[in-house]
Amino acid sequence: MGFKLIDDDKLKEECGVIGVYSKEDNVVEMIYHGLYALQHRGQESAGIATSSNGTINYHKNMGLVSEVFSSEKLEKLEGNMGIGHVRYSTAEENLGINAQPLVVKYKKGSIAIAHNGSIVNGESLREILEDEGVVFQTTNDCEVMANMIARYHKDEIEKAINRVMEVFKGSYALVLMTNDKLIGVRDNQGIRPLCLGKIKDGYVLASESCALDTIGAEFVRDIEPGEMVIIDGNGIKSIFNDKWSKKRLCIFEIVYFARPDSRIDDISVYLARKEAGKILAREYPVDADIVISVPDSGTSAAIGYAEESGIPYSIGLIKNRYIGRTFIKPNQSNREQGVKIKLNVLKENIQGKRVVLVDDSIVRGTTSKRIVSMLKKAGAKEVHLRISSPSVAYPCYFGIDTPYREHLVGANKTMDEICQMVNADSLGFLSEEGLIKSTGKAEGFCLACLNGDYPMEIPREEAVLNE
Amino acid sequence: MGFKLIDDDKLKEECGVIGVYSKEDNVVEMIYHGLYALQHRGQESAGIATSSNGTINYHKNMGLVSEVFSSEKLEKLEGNMGIGHVRYSTAEENLGINAQPLVVKYKKGSIAIAHNGSIVNGESLREILEDEGVVFQTTNDCEVMANMIARYHKDEIEKAINRVMEVFKGSYALVLMTNDKLIGVRDNQGIRPLCLGKIKDGYVLASESCALDTIGAEFVRDIEPGEMVIIDGNGIKSIFNDKWSKKRLCIFEIVYFARPDSRIDDISVYLARKEAGKILAREYPVDADIVISVPDSGTSAAIGYAEESGIPYSIGLIKNRYIGRTFIKPNQSNREQGVKIKLNVLKENIQGKRVVLVDDSIVRGTTSKRIVSMLKKAGAKEVHLRISSPSVAYPCYFGIDTPYREHLVGANKTMDEICQMVNADSLGFLSEEGLIKSTGKAEGFCLACLNGDYPMEIPREEAVLNE
Amino acid sequence: MGFKLIDDDKLKEECGVIGVYSKEDNVVEMIYHGLYALQHRGQESAGIATSSNGTINYHKNMGLVSEVFSSEKLEKLEGNMGIGHVRYSTAEENLGINAQPLVVKYKKGSIAIAHNGSIVNGESLREILEDEGVVFQTTNDCEVMANMIARYHKDEIEKAINRVMEVFKGSYALVLMTNDKLIGVRDNQGIRPLCLGKIKDGYVLASESCALDTIGAEFVRDIEPGEMVIIDGNGIKSIFNDKWSKKRLCIFEIVYFARPDSRIDDISVYLARKEAGKILAREYPVDADIVISVPDSGTSAAIGYAEESGIPYSIGLIKNRYIGRTFIKPNQSNREQGVKIKLNVLKENIQGKRVVLVDDSIVRGTTSKRIVSMLKKAGAKEVHLRISSPSVAYPCYFGIDTPYREHLVGANKTMDEICQMVNADSLGFLSEEGLIKSTGKAEGFCLACLNGDYPMEIPREEAVLNE
Amino acid sequence: MGFKLIDDDKLKEECGVIGVYSKEDNVVEMIYHGLYALQHRGQESAGIATSSNGTINYHKNMGLVSEVFSSEKLEKLEGNMGIGHVRYSTAEENLGINAQPLVVKYKKGSIAIAHNGSIVNGESLREILEDEGVVFQTTNDCEVMANMIARYHKDEIEKAINRVMEVFKGSYALVLMTNDKLIGVRDNQGIRPLCLGKIKDGYVLASESCALDTIGAEFVRDIEPGEMVIIDGNGIKSIFNDKWSKKRLCIFEIVYFARPDSRIDDISVYLARKEAGKILAREYPVDADIVISVPDSGTSAAIGYAEESGIPYSIGLIKNRYIGRTFIKPNQSNREQGVKIKLNVLKENIQGKRVVLVDDSIVRGTTSKRIVSMLKKAGAKEVHLRISSPSVAYPCYFGIDTPYREHLVGANKTMDEICQMVNADSLGFLSEEGLIKSTGKAEGFCLACLNGDYPMEIPREEAVLNE
Repeated sequence: MGFKLIDDDKLKEECGVIGVYSKEDNVVEMIYHGLYALQHRGQESAGIATSSNGTINYHKNMGLVSEVFSSEKLEKLEGNMGIGHVRYSTAEENLGINAQPLVVKYKKGSIAIAHNGSIVNGESLREILEDEGVVFQTTNDCEVMANMIARYHKDEIEKAINRVMEVFKGSYALVLMTNDKLIGVRDNQGIRPLCLGKIKDGYVLASESCALDTIGAEFVRDIEPGEMVIIDGNGIKSIFNDKWSKKRLCIFEIVYFARPDSRIDDISVYLARKEAGKILAREYPVDADIVISVPDSGTSAAIGYAEESGIPYSIGLIKNRYIGRTFIKPNQSNREQGVKIKLNVLKENIQGKRVVLVDDSIVRGTTSKRIVSMLKKAGAKEVHLRISSPSVAYPCYFGIDTPYREHLVGANKTMDEICQMVNADSLGFLSEEGLIKSTGKAEGFCLACLNGDYPMEIPREEAVLNE
Repeated sequence: MGFKLIDDDKLKEECGVIGVYSKEDNVVEMIYHGLYALQHRGQESAGIATSSNGTINYHKNMGLVSEVFSSEKLEKLEGNMGIGHVRYSTAEENLGINAQPLVVKYKKGSIAIAHNGSIVNGESLREILEDEGVVFQTTNDCEVMANMIARYHKDEIEKAINRVMEVFKGSYALVLMTNDKLIGVRDNQGIRPLCLGKIKDGYVLASESCALDTIGAEFVRDIEPGEMVIIDGNGIKSIFNDKWSKKRLCIFEIVYFARPDSRIDDISVYLARKEAGKILAREYPVDADIVISVPDSGTSAAIGYAEESGIPYSIGLIKNRYIGRTFIKPNQSNREQGVKIKLNVLKENIQGKRVVLVDDSIVRGTTSKRIVSMLKKAGAKEVHLRISSPSVAYPCYFGIDTPYREHLVGANKTMDEICQMVNADSLGFLSEEGLIKSTGKAEGFCLACLNGDYPMEIPREEAVLNE
Repeated sequence: MGFKLIDDDKLKEECGVIGVYSKEDNVVEMIYHGLYALQHRGQESAGIATSSNGTINYHKNMGLVSEVFSSEKLEKLEGNMGIGHVRYSTAEENLGINAQPLVVKYKKGSIAIAHNGSIVNGESLREILEDEGVVFQTTNDCEVMANMIARYHKDEIEKAINRVMEVFKGSYALVLMTNDKLIGVRDNQGIRPLCLGKIKDGYVLASESCALDTIGAEFVRDIEPGEMVIIDGNGIKSIFNDKWSKKRLCIFEIVYFARPDSRIDDISVYLARKEAGKILAREYPVDADIVISVPDSGTSAAIGYAEESGIPYSIGLIKNRYIGRTFIKPNQSNREQGVKIKLNVLKENIQGKRVVLVDDSIVRGTTSKRIVSMLKKAGAKEVHLRISSPSVAYPCYFGIDTPYREHLVGANKTMDEICQMVNADSLGFLSEEGLIKSTGKAEGFCLACLNGDYPMEIPREEAVLNE
Repeated sequence: MGFKLIDDDKLKEECGVIGVYSKEDNVVEMIYHGLYALQHRGQESAGIATSSNGTINYHKNMGLVSEVFSSEKLEKLEGNMGIGHVRYSTAEENLGINAQPLVVKYKKGSIAIAHNGSIVNGESLREILEDEGVVFQTTNDCEVMANMIARYHKDEIEKAINRVMEVFKGSYALVLMTNDKLIGVRDNQGIRPLCLGKIKDGYVLASESCALDTIGAEFVRDIEPGEMVIIDGNGIKSIFNDKWSKKRLCIFEIVYFARPDSRIDDISVYLARKEAGKILAREYPVDADIVISVPDSGTSAAIGYAEESGIPYSIGLIKNRYIGRTFIKPNQSNREQGVKIKLNVLKENIQGKRVVLVDDSIVRGTTSKRIVSMLKKAGAKEVHLRISSPSVAYPCYFGIDTPYREHLVGANKTMDEICQMVNADSLGFLSEEGLIKSTGKAEGFCLACLNGDYPMEIPREEAVLNE
């Protein structure tokens, strides 16, 4: 019984992307630092492709940005234009071949592509292409895109991409580089975020605005649903796909995935989370001594809950800042070990206290159960669990790695049953209305994982598999 | 002009140690997870040595714990006893040969040694040993220790170690393993921390109690100054060195190095830091809108400052959680880039606000200056910098990597001058008395880096070099 | 002025292939040992793909077989069927992405392909495919093949491969694996060798018979020009392409590439080389004291020359057996260093002697010049250079990496001029007739690099480039 | 039952050394190329240390020279003086820590040491040093030497080394580098070889003269038994140890270890081997059709046997030139696989023939048995095994890794029994007199492994262990 990697009980974002175009300078350093800022969106592989005088060079590998890129590798990635990618991948396909950007040569030259999202009809399109004799070397949606672009690319690449957008169903924030253009695309419903920034003599596209801040780019605006921006020596222009519809941004970008210092579609992630905590305090008030969070993702909401409730905010759990790939022997006595390596109770703040514990979400419920147990062992008199989002009850098909429905505690248990399961003294999930209200918007979100209202048709086989 | 590693403007701890003895079980997993909990004490190299039936196996290398140990490496480290080490090393000696534990064979068998600290008379002892014909393969104090133990070890190893303690001046939290014993030693003044924990059928020694929590060991007590604990099949016993004196724990363990969830010498690191923030609020009150911290080390004090002052605590800076070894092009325009990769301003919380910015310490002042600048660019109306420790004005010779005095801003500038240099609207350093008071103790600390009152004689040449 | 890799002045074979099908056993060990036997055909990358219950696993990388495969990697390559590949690649495309086998998924399942040879119309076919929207991730002909098979594969894969054979011009010894079949193909003119062997419960395909010997397979026969053999659970069957023509085996397989213990198309490589030496002795007799060879490739011919001439065979040059990738500082004084690292003169056998030096071929002439110089420095009275093949005067388009014509000494100089250039006392190239005669066959060879009589049309642009 | 490394049935040399001193130039390239020439003396680890302005830099690791040194590593090894080492190590101590050169700091500065040989009283000296408190980090004799030099080094290092030579029993060809001197030492009986060469502005020391040839150094002379040569800015000088005695060069340097192009103690290795073959032909004549060798070590003797007997020399076995670390599944059917990967029969030359098979030595006899079997399977009518050295019957304590006596076929079986065991039609070992005569000298060799006449006292425990 050997050592195994510790598994996490969190929803997993699949990727982060960045693209930089400069008229004059080498861009690799900006892309590289930008990927650091996006590392929370994917830690399994990283890659950068740059274009120098029509030649695309790239380097990608499994690992964190800091592991994949040495100074020697960076030196070799010259060019005034480039794209970068960080990736989270599910265990089954944990393969180097799937690292992005994907670089291919086709009749019109070379292109590099990187995307964040998931193509709902990717398998069907793959089959159609296979029926026409296409071979695939990876299991990436990128490879489907590259093939379709190559087929559609008769005159302008913009038209080819536009046609791809018409047949692709799903979510995709895409950055793409030809020999002389940097192109960014956001899916027709804007499920995944993508924003535009300005640098001295060029532009930046990135999954989140925190990447713009990190590299000193000025935030310009979010890319719109169905919008394609083309950046080249002539400047920047936009093309809108006919099929674009109103925005349905993945609500979990706001709830959990994005960095709190990012601004997505005019929503400050931090302020929305804090507001969610405030509303949660009104929806599920409780008489308690302190409010603590599950760091880091629950912290903003906890601060809001404390502010609204008047119960002092405190630190109850310390997160280890150095957890990378960690092994564990998966035996009986170690059941809580995975959580313990990441979190430790600050006993002094907990002992004898009635604790409000704020987390952003519950997926399987196993982690919550262990944290409640740790707090009670440390002397907490009561633990009131407050979740700053509704219960996740439906799988996501748009780029989030949700477990099958049978493992989604929200799909199978009532709030009371969950409360009992995690052994909390009380439990409250933020309401759907509360969550929407916290964003300051009235609408514009994909809430499918909460209410099953998918923004588009879902492949039947997948749906069945998950029932 | 190539890529260079980003350098940090923080005091650097040199090491963390752990040792585990179990009557029955393999201990490598506990040591490995314990090193994760101590990773903040050193990120340059990591190592584990285990003893199985009188054979010591070890693996050590440059890198983080997660980089050094694969599941295959862990599988090979069998044994019911072992020690582990994480190390920070100064740039000049950034060499694999200095990774610990050091494993040597001598007339009484094999020993593995790992230590945290610095031997003030290490060079002199090295010279004495060299005069007697000793050869050295590393520049580690461990190798000096191993040589002295080998020389003194006539009958019992305890006596040999005891004699070593008599000639060693400096700080050392030491874990040492012979074929059948695990030994822990804390220097005669207890400058570096070392604590004892209990597991089912054995004991744990660790630099900080957070490592005990992580592996499920029960905290027993701190090792005393000048104490040697010997753990073997017969249980545990203690020997005190004649030369021990009253405790002089490095105050910066409390101020900055230790994890807030650790308890050192009966002081809760978190509570002390929070209390320091409270006292700081009384010593340097200011009329402001929010209190923010430089994460993560300034957070506890900021919460205290907020609580005491009544000014709401908020989050103003977001720290990137994925910074490992990061490269940067060290040119003009990039001057702030190093800080920007690590920290980003949460503009929404800052704009138009009068901000109290709490940090734990100022070393060179360069980072503070850049953070103040970032906050002002983000729209802060005022930035009042509050430091939860006095100004660092003297170099440390006991295991902390302080810059030479000429670079220590506290050694060369008045508080007003520093305030001007970092461009803050006001500045306050916690007083020495306030700092001591924050710990709840009246005495028992080494404050040499603050006041020059070294707990022992310092080598003249070093002193001169730093003047 | 840094270190550079030593370059070789020899024609370079591009690849070696092997495929094994067994009804029962794991085949990876046989493929792995077979690749060792074929390592002389390519030292830049190595790869193995195995099929286990319809799943293809593979591992490939830059390096020698001994460097690419660890015991762990081998353990993971399970399956009763598999293919392997070793590759030499020209410097420009020294990229891991081009390592073979290539594994792709298409509408009929997965296939793994590895080949030795060169597709003359590969670029044109690639363009045709690109015109139809195909994207390419490598610069390998394999990828073109995979795409064409995928397009043609309507009912049986054999038909698809057959059609590919009809459009492919060039040389190719191909091994290909579907979920349940191992397929071997030899190009329509049989330019590259491929042979069939029998193991207990299955079959082996390999570039050379020495690989069969190494893994204990019994040699059955050579695959014929235009023949496709299909091996599966039902046994073995053959299909011949309509376009096959009479055999035109690359003569340099016999002269230089193949291992002397291989038998290719009923020719014992060793005996042919020895016979070539004998004929050379009759064509260019000389009065001398000893016959020596440039090891190892000239040895068989030297033995023949000695036997025929009656001049004793001796060892005059010792070859370093451990030369892998070796660096050199390419400055003036080092001009001969590259040769010296590989070869040393056995002075005792040379001094004062009139030496017949037998080598298999001359490409640029630079190495010959340096060897003659080394021998003369060592005291050779005369050096009579004898080459057991005619002068190489035309570039190869079928899988051999010849220099451009301007560097081919045979294309630009007469025999006398070459003799003068290499500073030999006399020089003799084996005649074309002599070479053919040495094989024991009257015809059946591609001699294009000797006489420009290409076995098929050559792309014009390439031809121009080389003129 | 996983994959295991193939083991070899040959005596193993333990090391090769080289040292270069130049007044002006960087020497790393010469040392590096020299190590290639010495690679046959050790393939397990390689290392180079260079001295530049008093600073010693080094790099060493497990692997071949070509694997250990990249161009980057070489660039960093600056200096006008340096030493290099290649090492074979027995399986038990196959550890990176034992790679040489060993670099240590002691009271007089830094030294780097590398040696070839074995100190018979190394363990005793280690114990004496341990009794005085010395600690050891490796199991290398080098570390014992370094410690003793450090102890004896009062005024001049030459005196210290001289004293070391007085207490060291055993064989050692040593190169040693201080801040300003390159020193070479050959043991008092000259068991291991060491020679001196001249370069433009300096000198070279090397285990074998082939290394001098490779780097373009002129052979000057062999270092004498008990001689120490000191090379520095003042030129070269020699000191002789009082205890030196007449030369007793290891005869197996001539028989097997050295490269045939080397000259050791005025003996041409090639000519001696060839002469041994001639004498063997007179001692054990046989009526046969061809003489073949086990390549490469048996080839020189086979040529001699052929010349003397008049039976034509031919090639019967082809050796794979690319065998590095190779794995095998050690099961029944694979028993011959290890040999087959390395050697293949040239059937055409063997079939129906009466074969004289010449090898240099027999150790366990297992390889000979398998080769005879391979030849007979290939159709050899008779196989007459001729060994160009007497039977190895005693273990070596001077740097050769012989198996324990129980496995030495020569220690336990008569010639007839061995003949039967290996299934040869006849067997002949060269006589001891014949072997000595082949060298052209009347005496001056250590023949202990042949006749048990050790050149010095052997540690009793070792002797017992081997009886």
